[in-house]
Amino acid sequence: MNRPMLPEKMRGSAGIIRLHGHRGARGVLPENTLIGFRNTFEIGVQVVETDIMVTADGVPVLTHNPRLMAAATRGPDGSWLTQDSKPIVQMTHDNLQQFDVGGLRDGTGYAARYPDQAFLSGIRIPDLAQLATLLQSPEHADAFLNIEIKSNPDHPDDAPPIPRLVAPVLAVINAAGIADRVLLQSFDWRVLSEIARQAPQIPLSYLTYETRAYPTMAVNVIDGSLWLDGASIADHNGSIPQVVSNLGGAVWSPYFQDLTSQTLAEAHALGLAVNVWTVNETADINRMIDLGVDGITTDYPARAQRCLLAKGQSWREDITPPPA
Amino acid sequence: MNRPMLPEKMRGSAGIIRLHGHRGARGVLPENTLIGFRNTFEIGVQVVETDIMVTADGVPVLTHNPRLMAAATRGPDGSWLTQDSKPIVQMTHDNLQQFDVGGLRDGTGYAARYPDQAFLSGIRIPDLAQLATLLQSPEHADAFLNIEIKSNPDHPDDAPPIPRLVAPVLAVINAAGIADRVLLQSFDWRVLSEIARQAPQIPLSYLTYETRAYPTMAVNVIDGSLWLDGASIADHNGSIPQVVSNLGGAVWSPYFQDLTSQTLAEAHALGLAVNVWTVNETADINRMIDLGVDGITTDYPARAQRCLLAKGQSWREDITPPPA
Repeated sequence: MNRPMLPEKMRGSAGIIRLHGHRGARGVLPENTLIGFRNTFEIGVQVVETDIMVTADGVPVLTHNPRLMAAATRGPDGSWLTQDSKPIVQMTHDNLQQFDVGGLRDGTGYAARYPDQAFLSGIRIPDLAQLATLLQSPEHADAFLNIEIKSNPDHPDDAPPIPRLVAPVLAVINAAGIADRVLLQSFDWRVLSEIARQAPQIPLSYLTYETRAYPTMAVNVIDGSLWLDGASIADHNGSIPQVVSNLGGAVWSPYFQDLTSQTLAEAHALGLAVNVWTVNETADINRMIDLGVDGITTDYPARAQRCLLAKGQSWREDITPPPA
Repeated sequence: MNRPMLPEKMRGSAGIIRLHGHRGARGVLPENTLIGFRNTFEIGVQVVETDIMVTADGVPVLTHNPRLMAAATRGPDGSWLTQDSKPIVQMTHDNLQQFDVGGLRDGTGYAARYPDQAFLSGIRIPDLAQLATLLQSPEHADAFLNIEIKSNPDHPDDAPPIPRLVAPVLAVINAAGIADRVLLQSFDWRVLSEIARQAPQIPLSYLTYETRAYPTMAVNVIDGSLWLDGASIADHNGSIPQVVSNLGGAVWSPYFQDLTSQTLAEAHALGLAVNVWTVNETADINRMIDLGVDGITTDYPARAQRCLLAKGQSWREDITPPPA
């Protein structure tokens, strides 16, 4: 079928599984920060995964939650937010620049999950244009972005209407001339439908989440729901890959615990790439390598490099396991 | 007594324990490489610990072992060394540049110890002048070096005679104008005596190792030995701090498992700073913080940042645990 293909260097192949540094490299550096993105590229991982929210004044900024997280945000006076902020969609870009997102607050569950994450101060929420600039520098000519556009049908007020959510993202991508170096993904498939209308040449990744492993995160595989833009998995023999393929996806991105060898084979037979998220433990990374996925999103890209090499595989063509 | 003092920003004080990134940040990036040093400074850790060997042509290079490690070195053809190289002191600087020290060899015990260390290719052994240049850049105006000069009385052929080992190190330090930003340390106290002769203004750190925790590493606390430049601990009531103080040391650097609250108090009473090496596990880092050491050398400086903040302490004056 005629659908946008992944750039070759984002595609998996025999012995090559692409690594996507999740929010940069959340395991070792503050998430969604320029220092985290740079570090991921500097260790030779070619794909950075990041998240987009759009501000009240229409600026796509790189941050994950609809509100600034109290566990990871200090205010202008240097003290921790006492609760999550008001919605980012109600804040201006300038307003956001007052907050420091360089570290995690000790004593929170979120901080406990990333004990090796460095603690920095004076770190600002970057916008997409800054990350695009990083890609334009010659040293990062081989770098790619996997950009998740955040939208939640259960909380429509947390983002602009979908056309106004998508348009500024595409504007930045086009202005920077990096349309051939991005993959766009969303759990809200209405966003993907809108991108296909506005920018039909950009490859899309359909995120799915079936097993409720993260208690605060909504499952999106609900037949006929807004999450799936009305699609019904049941109408396609219960096959998610079939639906993703029919919708013109280049990539299916399931939660890694949801993937089976059967559904992976099905996706591959349909010509889809399969990127799993978010795989952090060594045993899980190894299991995904053995399954034969195309891409692995991880908070610990260095760890995943080592897992791949130990199995005689790699994340890029120009680095191969050294001969003995 | 009249001895060189530590620069203020390398001195511990109430609520401040200095972090020294061991070999840069061996836990996350290849040891003794410019990318590792830069990362340590970029996360706000002000002291990089590194190791010096001197080449056949008299260049101080930053590498730990007397021979290139087979577990961490690829040759000019990209394949792993089948055994440790000939002594570095017999190799020229140009010759050394053929080797790639960007990654650890899977299957070795050494690689297993650092599973989160990134794997890079095309990484060369830096020389001290390159690291000194990094310190000269304005963004690293607050950076300091803790430089270990490697010398082993049991293997005198692995290094030049001590005066010729010390002189080129001091020449690079002086040429770069960073004499007030370095601490020099050695297990071979003859090296420290020689530095005191050639550069009496530079503060010295006396390394000690009593408990044989690393099987391949020699204990150096042997009364009257060359290791101690003939000093006798027994002649000073068995007190290592007393001997270090008498010799004019600014710092005593014991293996962390060797330190007790008694010997720490004794060192402090003598005006010595106490830096412990190499502390990697969270429980051990926390124990050293509670003991009240002045400096902690660790392969995981980000982890140690978090441990300090969790106890309401810091590693530098301008970063304090954020108020609630």
